[in-house]
Amino acid sequence: MQNRIFQQIAKSEPLLWQKIKKHWQQGKIVIPKNPRHKKLKPLAIGKDLKIKINANIGKSNECSSLKEEMKKLKIVEKYGADAVMDLSVGQGIRKYRQAIIKATSLCFGTVPIYEAVEDCGGIYQLNIKNYLETLKKHGEDGVDFVTIHAGLRRKFIPHIKKRLTGVVSRGGSFLYRWMKRYHQENFLYTYFDEILKVCKKYSMTISLGDALRPGSIADNTDQAQIGELKELGKLVLRCKKARVQVMVEGPGHVPINKIEQNVKLQKKYCYGAPFYVLGPLVTDIAPGYDHITAAIGGAWAGYFGTDFLCYVTPAEHLGLPSLEDVKEGVIASKIAAHAADIAHGIDGEWDKKLSAARKKFQWDKQAKLCLDPEKFKKYRNKKSKNMRSCSMCGKYCAMYEN
Amino acid sequence: MQNRIFQQIAKSEPLLWQKIKKHWQQGKIVIPKNPRHKKLKPLAIGKDLKIKINANIGKSNECSSLKEEMKKLKIVEKYGADAVMDLSVGQGIRKYRQAIIKATSLCFGTVPIYEAVEDCGGIYQLNIKNYLETLKKHGEDGVDFVTIHAGLRRKFIPHIKKRLTGVVSRGGSFLYRWMKRYHQENFLYTYFDEILKVCKKYSMTISLGDALRPGSIADNTDQAQIGELKELGKLVLRCKKARVQVMVEGPGHVPINKIEQNVKLQKKYCYGAPFYVLGPLVTDIAPGYDHITAAIGGAWAGYFGTDFLCYVTPAEHLGLPSLEDVKEGVIASKIAAHAADIAHGIDGEWDKKLSAARKKFQWDKQAKLCLDPEKFKKYRNKKSKNMRSCSMCGKYCAMYEN
Repeated sequence: MQNRIFQQIAKSEPLLWQKIKKHWQQGKIVIPKNPRHKKLKPLAIGKDLKIKINANIGKSNECSSLKEEMKKLKIVEKYGADAVMDLSVGQGIRKYRQAIIKATSLCFGTVPIYEAVEDCGGIYQLNIKNYLETLKKHGEDGVDFVTIHAGLRRKFIPHIKKRLTGVVSRGGSFLYRWMKRYHQENFLYTYFDEILKVCKKYSMTISLGDALRPGSIADNTDQAQIGELKELGKLVLRCKKARVQVMVEGPGHVPINKIEQNVKLQKKYCYGAPFYVLGPLVTDIAPGYDHITAAIGGAWAGYFGTDFLCYVTPAEHLGLPSLEDVKEGVIASKIAAHAADIAHGIDGEWDKKLSAARKKFQWDKQAKLCLDPEKFKKYRNKKSKNMRSCSMCGKYCAMYEN
Repeated sequence: MQNRIFQQIAKSEPLLWQKIKKHWQQGKIVIPKNPRHKKLKPLAIGKDLKIKINANIGKSNECSSLKEEMKKLKIVEKYGADAVMDLSVGQGIRKYRQAIIKATSLCFGTVPIYEAVEDCGGIYQLNIKNYLETLKKHGEDGVDFVTIHAGLRRKFIPHIKKRLTGVVSRGGSFLYRWMKRYHQENFLYTYFDEILKVCKKYSMTISLGDALRPGSIADNTDQAQIGELKELGKLVLRCKKARVQVMVEGPGHVPINKIEQNVKLQKKYCYGAPFYVLGPLVTDIAPGYDHITAAIGGAWAGYFGTDFLCYVTPAEHLGLPSLEDVKEGVIASKIAAHAADIAHGIDGEWDKKLSAARKKFQWDKQAKLCLDPEKFKKYRNKKSKNMRSCSMCGKYCAMYEN
């Protein structure tokens, strides 16, 4: 990585470029960057940096279109996501991937097994040969980071069987079924060196997938999850040896009292590699509102040292997200990341500016500074048009004269 | 308090009734209960109990109607709030209060100074005589708990002047302006013994208002806030001596890294009196989404020992909440409270049941168990109608066959 990249990144980070470089050399920061992704604005994820957020888009077999997904991409960019993953499944995935990469400057990720399973004809036709073919295509197309579920080993099957909700990772479930059918080790583990070669060749960063993330509070921090986490730690070392950048994915459904422990364990077992979590969701009872359960978990996970938050939308557990769901998900995740940043002493000027404008009844300035100016103006116009204060307190506004 | 009340309460709490009684005797639990509130289902708030949530409703000078507020009450009840406060300002407040008390079995609270200021003709006409007259009316009408900002002392004025956002408590701001005009001590402090007599007579619980809660991250945990908190602790002792039940209100805008400290300080300075927080909001940058910033803070405040969460709606800082805002606020707060409860080992069966239903693709059962069945069904019907799994993964659903 050239120094100018570190210098460019340092402009929007609370670290000096030399420090960023040092952490990067130690594998505590990743800068996923495939040279074929021409529009990429380099992004750093990891130790002592601002917390980054990712938004998942992509079609399913059942719904959406390229047009719809490109609209989602615009929303994701507008509301401040740092990275985007295309999680499309079904026919014609490559078309979506190529269109998104061509259009976006955001760091871009995929889960190649989704395409591999489609192209080879089904879960039980998967093998390392057709997987590597697919992985190469992702490299050729300019994918910056790829999720690879290589830590899901056969030895965890007995632990999985004890779970309330089994395997909830889509990619993980393919491999789980494959292992059970063929009584063989996960081919992504067996041939991990081959995978490293391809990732090295195309400068793709590996995001080690947590196939065994808990899908319910009941399964949190269990033997299956922690067993896989330790395995991921060993794979981190193999990535480092092969000079392939690596980060590690994490849960999932985790109650508040276990979040700190989860982050600490990841940092310990994975040698400080950046931690990328989905949520965590702090309760199971709120489908329709899982952007909120994830914001609660994500903010605190970030505070305790998580580097990268994957957004969760209100549609989680219920269906493919709509445009509105994507927006809600990005904003909730952004709130979580920023709340953790300011708790780390980073970026607090933003809050100060907004509150100063609030104190001075500068409504336009507040709108400009807040996360969602359109929603702000809609509220303002509907409820408090032409008022100096707002319709909550009117003339009794506490902010007058003090 | 009769034993049968403790016994009744214990049925839905994780404590034996004898333990609840003991904590209540020590002032660590309150059971706000005005015998004139005939429909009241007694509610306990405090140590080792489930975390309770309050929803504020009420008109402003500028908008709403009794009909609208009664609709809000129904929503508040439907989505599981434990208490409701009428924060109406302007003319004719009593009509709203009486209608709500007559209609609801929820524990009911008010801020009497809002009515006092209206009835006496303005902030600078306020005095202890007209305040006590108003307070008595609240007692007669059956109000279970009243917010009283008696801890706002003159000596804090220099600290307030250093703040970015000054005083943001509505009731507090009346007293602040009154003190500055008359160069006198807050009359609620001076005549606190008179207030105690009225509250004692009508069995109203005092909720000591935090007039100096921080209204921005910049002002969090500052001299003004902590000075008032210590003062509130002294007033707690005076309430106890007078055998008036008491809880203490808290912030406000607080960053994640200060939440635990805030809760611990309240418990220390206020002799274990129940803690009732508004939020806390963990960032200032998200007007339109402050139900989320409050859910992040509330969940963790609850986990660290806060007993009672006041909801915050998406309309916070922007206007009087609509019916939809009230619903969003209650649900976000409910998520926060439950997430903290399960982290305390309470009520986890709920999550387990929902996740078991999810694993078995029992969609109707999930809808019945979740916080918002209507939203659940709307998503389901729109996105995933007639599918065994959902439109996110379709045939690739991870939950099949494992």
